Amino acid sequence: MKNVVIYDSTLRDGAQSQGISFTVADKIKIVELLDEFGIDYIEAGNPGSNPKDMEFFEIIKSKKLKNAKVIAFGSTRRANIPVEIDNNVNSLLHAGTDHVAVFGKSWDFHVSEILRTTLDENLNMIFDTIKYLKNHGKEVVFDAEHFFDGFLENPEYALKTLEVAYDAGADSICLCDTKGGMFPLDIFNITKKVVEKFNCEIGIHTHNDNGMAVANAIMAVEAGATQIQGTINGYGERCGNANLCTIIPNLQFKKGIKCVEDEKMKEITILSRRVSEIANAAPDERAPYVGRSAFAHKAGMHSDAVCKNTRSYEIIDPEMVGNERVLLLSEVAGRSAIIGIINEVDPTINRESEKTKRILEKLKEMEFKGYKYEGAEGSLKLLIQKVLGMYKPSFKLIEFKVIVNEPSVDDVNSSALIKIEVDGQEEITAAEGDGPVNALDNAVRKALERFYPEVKEMKLTDYKVRVLDSNSATAAKVRVIIESSDGNEVWSTIGVSTDIIDASWIALVDSIEYKLNKI
Amino acid sequence: MKNVVIYDSTLRDGAQSQGISFTVADKIKIVELLDEFGIDYIEAGNPGSNPKDMEFFEIIKSKKLKNAKVIAFGSTRRANIPVEIDNNVNSLLHAGTDHVAVFGKSWDFHVSEILRTTLDENLNMIFDTIKYLKNHGKEVVFDAEHFFDGFLENPEYALKTLEVAYDAGADSICLCDTKGGMFPLDIFNITKKVVEKFNCEIGIHTHNDNGMAVANAIMAVEAGATQIQGTINGYGERCGNANLCTIIPNLQFKKGIKCVEDEKMKEITILSRRVSEIANAAPDERAPYVGRSAFAHKAGMHSDAVCKNTRSYEIIDPEMVGNERVLLLSEVAGRSAIIGIINEVDPTINRESEKTKRILEKLKEMEFKGYKYEGAEGSLKLLIQKVLGMYKPSFKLIEFKVIVNEPSVDDVNSSALIKIEVDGQEEITAAEGDGPVNALDNAVRKALERFYPEVKEMKLTDYKVRVLDSNSATAAKVRVIIESSDGNEVWSTIGVSTDIIDASWIALVDSIEYKLNKI
Repeated sequence: MKNVVIYDSTLRDGAQSQGISFTVADKIKIVELLDEFGIDYIEAGNPGSNPKDMEFFEIIKSKKLKNAKVIAFGSTRRANIPVEIDNNVNSLLHAGTDHVAVFGKSWDFHVSEILRTTLDENLNMIFDTIKYLKNHGKEVVFDAEHFFDGFLENPEYALKTLEVAYDAGADSICLCDTKGGMFPLDIFNITKKVVEKFNCEIGIHTHNDNGMAVANAIMAVEAGATQIQGTINGYGERCGNANLCTIIPNLQFKKGIKCVEDEKMKEITILSRRVSEIANAAPDERAPYVGRSAFAHKAGMHSDAVCKNTRSYEIIDPEMVGNERVLLLSEVAGRSAIIGIINEVDPTINRESEKTKRILEKLKEMEFKGYKYEGAEGSLKLLIQKVLGMYKPSFKLIEFKVIVNEPSVDDVNSSALIKIEVDGQEEITAAEGDGPVNALDNAVRKALERFYPEVKEMKLTDYKVRVLDSNSATAAKVRVIIESSDGNEVWSTIGVSTDIIDASWIALVDSIEYKLNKI
Repeated sequence: MKNVVIYDSTLRDGAQSQGISFTVADKIKIVELLDEFGIDYIEAGNPGSNPKDMEFFEIIKSKKLKNAKVIAFGSTRRANIPVEIDNNVNSLLHAGTDHVAVFGKSWDFHVSEILRTTLDENLNMIFDTIKYLKNHGKEVVFDAEHFFDGFLENPEYALKTLEVAYDAGADSICLCDTKGGMFPLDIFNITKKVVEKFNCEIGIHTHNDNGMAVANAIMAVEAGATQIQGTINGYGERCGNANLCTIIPNLQFKKGIKCVEDEKMKEITILSRRVSEIANAAPDERAPYVGRSAFAHKAGMHSDAVCKNTRSYEIIDPEMVGNERVLLLSEVAGRSAIIGIINEVDPTINRESEKTKRILEKLKEMEFKGYKYEGAEGSLKLLIQKVLGMYKPSFKLIEFKVIVNEPSVDDVNSSALIKIEVDGQEEITAAEGDGPVNALDNAVRKALERFYPEVKEMKLTDYKVRVLDSNSATAAKVRVIIESSDGNEVWSTIGVSTDIIDASWIALVDSIEYKLNKI
């Protein structure tokens, strides 16, 4: 039995985060991750305000999802026009989803000062829009924007906007703290009043401008709300939205309120990290439950106590969310995650084998250097081969030199010279490129083609850079992830270094070796 | 009149953050910043557990502080020994502060399982330690560790530990959610009971393991607590402590509870950034009130509304905390977002002016090339200056050459030669670095210092790379965003190119020009 419904807005409100911009392909990937995890509703975009979003809705129609319902989001009709001719409202129909969310103003101040229309016309806008969408067979969520601010200044009007939405047929009503300034007791008391008054699903949508978005969402649930809106990692406008990666474990483990299937909870840490990778946003190390420091014990007394009984300084066992305890002592977390991949390389190895232990030790060592093999399984398989003594390098680098010129020479700014060796035979060559990494990539392939014509089949399909320790600015460590394909298979490899050329080189070598070592 | 007392533990609990380690000089600097800002109590270290801390207490004795009282922190005496011979307790006396904080166990589980002593002996430990310190003339704060967990499992015993502390003469009693797992309603109800029972200052100390540290501290204040413990930027063990940079504005502006002098509130953003600089921790951009995105508006509708009335989407005026409003330019933002920034460059230009139109056209052209000025306001201001003909470059690049060698030469893999011109005078120089961008950064600063010594004041504080069209792999366009600081101001600049060196160079030049063009 499900007690609450989780409503994710990473792709809509989350995309309002400073510095975050999702491509259509990014959005599809995130929908798939959320669906797999067991999120109920995915608010995926505003088709009326953004042409990219309409393209997304076209593509998503053809995808078969397991659980999730995709939601198109938009506003009530504009003032003083019939709803039938409102382009934004019609774009909600064109998005082709079964569910839509419509936001309308619940704060009289916003109606007068921002919309600049009358309080009555605003009620008509809410009613007409919901009625119209209901008449077209949609399930409708009404987002009561600024509901709490409105309630504190003019409770009668704020409630009136909900009544109108309810009368027009809204299937659920979501109370929004759009500015993120509400205090927990107010959220509790006001939500309680609304829950008592309306016989439909009541939702809560909070922002983090006062640092209390998670607590406010929880308080609304304590008062009877059953739909929780938030985003993965708390992405969102200004200080962000309520962080679902915090709220879900809070409710599931601490309140016994089921949000997703129990076995899925172990994937929430990986979900958080994958989404941050796609958003190209540095993960928050101190994030509750899913952050790298969430179960890191530093004070000596704490570490000692945790060794006696983990309950002494941990609110849950980190395994419950797929995260790890970090102590000075070695431990065995990760063994079950890695065994599947080990068995792809050598099916005879089991969990308890000495070889597994050696691989885990090597992994820890590499992770300490900044490697992260989630999303770089090509490099991971090569690493396993290396530890097992199964790896045979296809070539050896003797040297390279990359030169970048400004101004460019004949429109080419970078050139690379490379010397490699294959089975005792040397090859020296050079190539040009758009930037140093591209020149180096071109040069190494050119050098290898004579020995391995199959290198021509592969091409790099994605190249991602992440600065690991951004405080050291241009001397910081960078992590490069390269995705390659030969038409049949796609594989990803990783390189880490303080030098972007070197990090790219490491990932490039792995990419080529993976291709040449495949069976 | 002061309503609550702010108790900072950045130097003690904050120092338990993964990755944070303060030198004695760092600690002195932070004490001075906190004192200047108006913090009441500064818990500065644990002299019994850390020799560095004892050195700190020696030095701090000679400093004259304006407001703040420095506090030495330690545990109750060990089990089954007289308090007079307990080294840790005596080190609290040797620290030479007027105030001390002592933590003791309030959770029976911890007494039995971790301390492994009897419940009675634990009560004696609390009583003896506080009595001893009171007899030596100290003001004593009793930190009731795990008080809330204890209360939920054995309320009678948890309260008994407080009674004993009170009877021994504790001047204030602080209720700790040491594991950070409490829910707001429990904090409220339990704190209320304690406040009604004891006639002394009641404090609250919360951790953020469930993302509710700030809300929990606020709930305790609503229940009558008057001492709030937390840290600057929420640093602390695991997920951190309650963030004072959030709590103080919440109470001061939203609850009318005075924490520091009103005029000091404008310095809280700079306090947060200075401390993060000393801690060498990247600032949290989404931090409430003090983060760089805290007042950043991206959705077009939000930007429009904020231009009509800032109250529409802001919980306070950013100036009240010394922060800035940022109108981001995303696909959906328009003229109103940009006019504020144009007016910072030239206050005489209005929305409808021909100049505004030209700036918007230039912006579109640049955005088409992959530029994105949200989060790169430094470059945006320079761009506006360029369109308006107000821009005067401080130097001209004649050429650079960057060479990357593999294998490295003398452990250095990159070197850059640069030739620039300033007012007809040429300068040619070279520098090495960790990677090509770092070498180029070092070289250009070296070349400029002769002409512009103020270049020394600035440093790069963040460096971000994003691949725009990752399908072209290593020949893809990259966008580099650099954040720089000169201690007073933080600014961001952008560069886009198919070559990462070139993109970095463009952003570097803007960063330097911004510094040199500031008034």
